Amino acid sequence: MSAQAPIAFAARESKEVIEEGLQFAPKFDDQGLIPAFAVDADSGAPLMLAYMNEQSLKMTLELGQAVYWSRSRNQLWHKGATSGEFQVIVDIRTDCDQDALVLRVKQQGGGCCHTKRATCFYRVVKTVGGEALLEPIPC
Amino acid sequence: MSAQAPIAFAARESKEVIEEGLQFAPKFDDQGLIPAFAVDADSGAPLMLAYMNEQSLKMTLELGQAVYWSRSRNQLWHKGATSGEFQVIVDIRTDCDQDALVLRVKQQGGGCCHTKRATCFYRVVKTVGGEALLEPIPC
Repeated sequence: MSAQAPIAFAARESKEVIEEGLQFAPKFDDQGLIPAFAVDADSGAPLMLAYMNEQSLKMTLELGQAVYWSRSRNQLWHKGATSGEFQVIVDIRTDCDQDALVLRVKQQGGGCCHTKRATCFYRVVKTVGGEALLEPIPC
Repeated sequence: MSAQAPIAFAARESKEVIEEGLQFAPKFDDQGLIPAFAVDADSGAPLMLAYMNEQSLKMTLELGQAVYWSRSRNQLWHKGATSGEFQVIVDIRTDCDQDALVLRVKQQGGGCCHTKRATCFYRVVKTVGGEALLEPIPC
């Protein structure tokens, strides 16, 4: 993953260029992170929301597998490197202001979630008499 | 939206309760925000990523329409209040550690994006000779 030219991102020149241009100029927040939402490339089902820094985003583009930045461990997180649950990138989309990513992936291994479920989004919010409860979604 | 009992969220007691419990105990970051990813309830297509604070999340649950917190305007943002592009909530899902939300919505009006497109995710990232470019997705 290092034989090719290093990937460069464009500067964020203007609102017009960011919204309508064809140069990728991702915005990282004040902690150097951009949210990346992984969805199943075939079904569109939501899988997980994690974060990338500039280095992990470039690694993702070079490797073709999701590499996040772990905020809890404060280190690069090549998803699947220990579990086998790699996420093979089908494509990466960005939004109008280029401060969020959608990863369309083919999830490898048993599932996306560390709880061994197919997706991290396995509960739906319900309000009952002023209390906010969760209801499991079969998955 | 105020005749009913105010909505209460649960305390974040333990990893076990957060991951496997049936009480909604959302985690707001150090700026008091939680990311909320809106997808089309019918097609599953990604629409937009925005943020909610505790107040806007409770308003969303009470109103049944997406209410975000605008980080740029630093104020509540009832999506559609000026444009007519309301997002009617079908359901709200949270993830294993309850620090992210997926909103399944019925998008009203012309589209989700302020650029008048159906979705904010209208470009895909391509790398060409070390340069990261964007390719429009018809939508």
